[in-house]
Amino acid sequence: MSSVSPSSVSLGSRVPDEDDRRFVLTLGCLDRPGVIARITSLIAEFGGSIVEAGYHSDADTGWFFTRQAIKAATVPFEFARLRARFAALAEEFGPETEWQLLDSGARRTAVLLVSKDGHCLHDLLGRASSGELPADIAAVIGNHPDLGAITEAHGVPFHHVRFPKDPAERGPAFEQVRELVDKHDPDAVVLARFMQVLPAALCAHWAGKAINIHHSFLPSFVGARPYHQAFARGVKLIGATCHYVTPELDAGPIIEQDVTRIDHADDVRDMVRQGRDIERVVLARGLRWHLEGRVLVHGRRTVVFS
Amino acid sequence: MSSVSPSSVSLGSRVPDEDDRRFVLTLGCLDRPGVIARITSLIAEFGGSIVEAGYHSDADTGWFFTRQAIKAATVPFEFARLRARFAALAEEFGPETEWQLLDSGARRTAVLLVSKDGHCLHDLLGRASSGELPADIAAVIGNHPDLGAITEAHGVPFHHVRFPKDPAERGPAFEQVRELVDKHDPDAVVLARFMQVLPAALCAHWAGKAINIHHSFLPSFVGARPYHQAFARGVKLIGATCHYVTPELDAGPIIEQDVTRIDHADDVRDMVRQGRDIERVVLARGLRWHLEGRVLVHGRRTVVFS
Amino acid sequence: MSSVSPSSVSLGSRVPDEDDRRFVLTLGCLDRPGVIARITSLIAEFGGSIVEAGYHSDADTGWFFTRQAIKAATVPFEFARLRARFAALAEEFGPETEWQLLDSGARRTAVLLVSKDGHCLHDLLGRASSGELPADIAAVIGNHPDLGAITEAHGVPFHHVRFPKDPAERGPAFEQVRELVDKHDPDAVVLARFMQVLPAALCAHWAGKAINIHHSFLPSFVGARPYHQAFARGVKLIGATCHYVTPELDAGPIIEQDVTRIDHADDVRDMVRQGRDIERVVLARGLRWHLEGRVLVHGRRTVVFS
Amino acid sequence: MSSVSPSSVSLGSRVPDEDDRRFVLTLGCLDRPGVIARITSLIAEFGGSIVEAGYHSDADTGWFFTRQAIKAATVPFEFARLRARFAALAEEFGPETEWQLLDSGARRTAVLLVSKDGHCLHDLLGRASSGELPADIAAVIGNHPDLGAITEAHGVPFHHVRFPKDPAERGPAFEQVRELVDKHDPDAVVLARFMQVLPAALCAHWAGKAINIHHSFLPSFVGARPYHQAFARGVKLIGATCHYVTPELDAGPIIEQDVTRIDHADDVRDMVRQGRDIERVVLARGLRWHLEGRVLVHGRRTVVFS
Repeated sequence: MSSVSPSSVSLGSRVPDEDDRRFVLTLGCLDRPGVIARITSLIAEFGGSIVEAGYHSDADTGWFFTRQAIKAATVPFEFARLRARFAALAEEFGPETEWQLLDSGARRTAVLLVSKDGHCLHDLLGRASSGELPADIAAVIGNHPDLGAITEAHGVPFHHVRFPKDPAERGPAFEQVRELVDKHDPDAVVLARFMQVLPAALCAHWAGKAINIHHSFLPSFVGARPYHQAFARGVKLIGATCHYVTPELDAGPIIEQDVTRIDHADDVRDMVRQGRDIERVVLARGLRWHLEGRVLVHGRRTVVFS
Repeated sequence: MSSVSPSSVSLGSRVPDEDDRRFVLTLGCLDRPGVIARITSLIAEFGGSIVEAGYHSDADTGWFFTRQAIKAATVPFEFARLRARFAALAEEFGPETEWQLLDSGARRTAVLLVSKDGHCLHDLLGRASSGELPADIAAVIGNHPDLGAITEAHGVPFHHVRFPKDPAERGPAFEQVRELVDKHDPDAVVLARFMQVLPAALCAHWAGKAINIHHSFLPSFVGARPYHQAFARGVKLIGATCHYVTPELDAGPIIEQDVTRIDHADDVRDMVRQGRDIERVVLARGLRWHLEGRVLVHGRRTVVFS
Repeated sequence: MSSVSPSSVSLGSRVPDEDDRRFVLTLGCLDRPGVIARITSLIAEFGGSIVEAGYHSDADTGWFFTRQAIKAATVPFEFARLRARFAALAEEFGPETEWQLLDSGARRTAVLLVSKDGHCLHDLLGRASSGELPADIAAVIGNHPDLGAITEAHGVPFHHVRFPKDPAERGPAFEQVRELVDKHDPDAVVLARFMQVLPAALCAHWAGKAINIHHSFLPSFVGARPYHQAFARGVKLIGATCHYVTPELDAGPIIEQDVTRIDHADDVRDMVRQGRDIERVVLARGLRWHLEGRVLVHGRRTVVFS
Repeated sequence: MSSVSPSSVSLGSRVPDEDDRRFVLTLGCLDRPGVIARITSLIAEFGGSIVEAGYHSDADTGWFFTRQAIKAATVPFEFARLRARFAALAEEFGPETEWQLLDSGARRTAVLLVSKDGHCLHDLLGRASSGELPADIAAVIGNHPDLGAITEAHGVPFHHVRFPKDPAERGPAFEQVRELVDKHDPDAVVLARFMQVLPAALCAHWAGKAINIHHSFLPSFVGARPYHQAFARGVKLIGATCHYVTPELDAGPIIEQDVTRIDHADDVRDMVRQGRDIERVVLARGLRWHLEGRVLVHGRRTVVFS
């Protein structure tokens, strides 16, 4: 979520039907009696039809979260004017209020960062082709050239950025990645098994839109070779975690997780194969929820109106 | 849900803390712009704090559903007055409106119907002992005496009603069950593996509060011996379904379902054993949701604000 | 499984390492004491190392099933000689014995039949690219041209076969499909959301190798529009089923099934989207197990040594 | 598993039918060609019928594991003689070989250690009543008196052992527990939410038969208040782990794990309630597998022939 002055962003170019178009409000503020009433009354005033609504009062932090999807056809004025009304309302709710208004009819984009392992990339390209992803994949950047051909076969530009072996010398490569990404001003920067730890400056720069898929059920098995760690510990389920990228490794707010059952007969190679099925679907779900404005971050936790 | 004139019922005697007490509104009506605003504004007027809220607009039927849990300590007047306010509001929403106001601080009761198979009964008695069930078990009625001792050890009265072999002669036995149940005016009549098909008149009499657990993933394997049916078909998962009882066998609105994985090595006996784990938890979840006013029935479908 | 005279088939070209090469025996016969001992003693005689073994005694049918993966490097003679030894042994076990010996180092192929819906195709092409599929995709045949471009981008030939609107006139189209498929003599014919009911003659012709993915948890919701059926019934989980194709619609032996949770807020369109994640993974698992000789059919049930 | 000189133990008194009686061999040894053949040939020699068989070759450690359930009615001599034959065979397989022969017709017992939280106790007592548990519960020991009444209602003796507040002074209490447990020489000592860390000496004393249920998906959230830890980290699934007790806290070999989905609306109290459903079933599964000789420990990992 952005601060009180939001950017208005799209839910993707995949929903062509005007009847399906929604204006989606997400808002987090200090909870107090009447917040819901104020928001819904504002919408009722102009006859807006709320087709989907989520609310959450967090007893732990005293914070209130909501997501309201308004049928665009029932809004009798322009998006900008609706935004202005919500801006005034958000102002009332105090300076810590964070909110956003999305137009599901506007174009939305993601840039993917990859390495050699293609299962998440194949999956996301396939979903984009099938119209399942509420965004266009604007570009794919790889630190290896391997996945270039298939990316371009999907009509998506691919950029190969060479990363030096010595981590201390990777600054210019990351700078090049930053430039290639920022050119698209994407709604999501997806580390689709990128296998590179983002520098703190990039984590800050893309805060709230850089999304990683980690191949373990966090907080178990942080860092390298999680399936090897899982094998050594003898766990009976393996998992994957989709989370926002923060400077602390694999410690960002979790968007989605899932697990799959393994047994003693599964070695690390079997785990890698079975884990991919979880990685694919966990990343795809997390990314979709992010793009549709379903994820609200509060501290280290997320509210997901899925 | 009852009709426009609701009975006020409790969420159970298990929540002793006044701070935890909630007044819970559930309401279903024809959807129109402003419904949410009207309800939440009414609550905001007296400074009520909404601690949990669920909304659902059903595009298919044009129906609107909500459940609002208001912190009782923030309601500056009596329950009856709150109910009167909501009654007036419900009136506005049209004659088809169905609503209910629950007081989580009031006592709530369930009566269980059982046969010989005790796994669901043991589970529910254990949950009641652990304070997990938002109701008291007022009585257990068995068509066999087998489960009497354990029931009474939990301090719950047990009644044995003898059922004749011939289904055509079971009328008086069902009549006796009806009397024993109705004496307690329970919030739920739970067929916890009762193994008897309720007569249509009893289904009607207990409509909306008779809950059954069926040991299959409905609509697969309706009727008798579902695990045998599942074995014969060679399915790879078995399940259980908690549903409201209606005259058509195993066809009532579904509250909850779940499944567990089996494989070729599992024979019917293994399925029975593994299925019990699913039956127990599916029934317990469904019953809790029913007792907490989380289940709204609309036609053959349910809205569950879990 | 083939009959007493088996074809020797490969587990795919994806396992290049000689150390990983296995000769895989699958066998089903009437159970009797000593069957396991006879098989394992034969392997022990020449010092064969069994790296994976599955056994199942079916009390219901009195049938015995086994799958034994022998490390190829520990077999001191040629594949054909090993096959001859097992052939002699199978002879002993009686005329109903069915068995097969696979060489995991040999090439294995699949032909895919598709329509317009690309999610399973994208997934399988991606898995083939990632080396996850123990087979090459030899060809894709579509009754619409839509998925041709992406198929060819993966270097796989695509054939468009036009199907007349009138089902009664589709004979020649099916004949053309049969010819295109049989040219590759594939180990699997995959109906990857083909949306056409195979004629009985083709079911018989490809018996034991035609695999379908049905978008419901069978036996629920057979036939057309299963998600619509699921929505109407109000189920709380939706599923997918991978099964061998037989003349009776959606009634073939089940290889694999799985489910995913939905709730009242999910309409048919949401089910379609969420169901795809299950369809993809259930088909991929079922196909892999089939290709690796892990699935033994007995009547309407399958033994799966996964 | 015991060492080369095994104790012969029962699979429980719950299987009265002679036709269901099995002699169950479990064995772990250094893998080599011919091990399976030697074992199964020995069984074939006397015409033994193997009704269930599991094998596992661990490529990582070069170890071989098997479990063979022989139909007792097909063994033409006494249990002791069968044991003597397997003892001689095990000798051949080398000094590190570990094996055990169980008689499913013999009585098997468990002693439960509890505190105040009764959900696992209620569940296990209920399962014992339903005949689901392949053992008798010989006694329950509580460090609080709360669960005494319900235990005794099930006809099971309850012992209250008072534990001093100061952990340094708990030695005599643990000594008393040890004596009460050892009097029954149980096949399993179950820490059913005992909430006390066993001293290292007791861990050693009950090695391989003390089983704990930990209310997290280990290795995440070791130690106290795992649900609070899970809430703070914002995970999307919570779990439970059944493991053998070793001196290092929550680090013993894992027998079984499972998880359940939570979301942002679930606070710690909700997690506690939902987690109980997982704890119950994970402990019950793990205990059953242990009692039926399905769990073979090797280092920090387990082989589970479930």
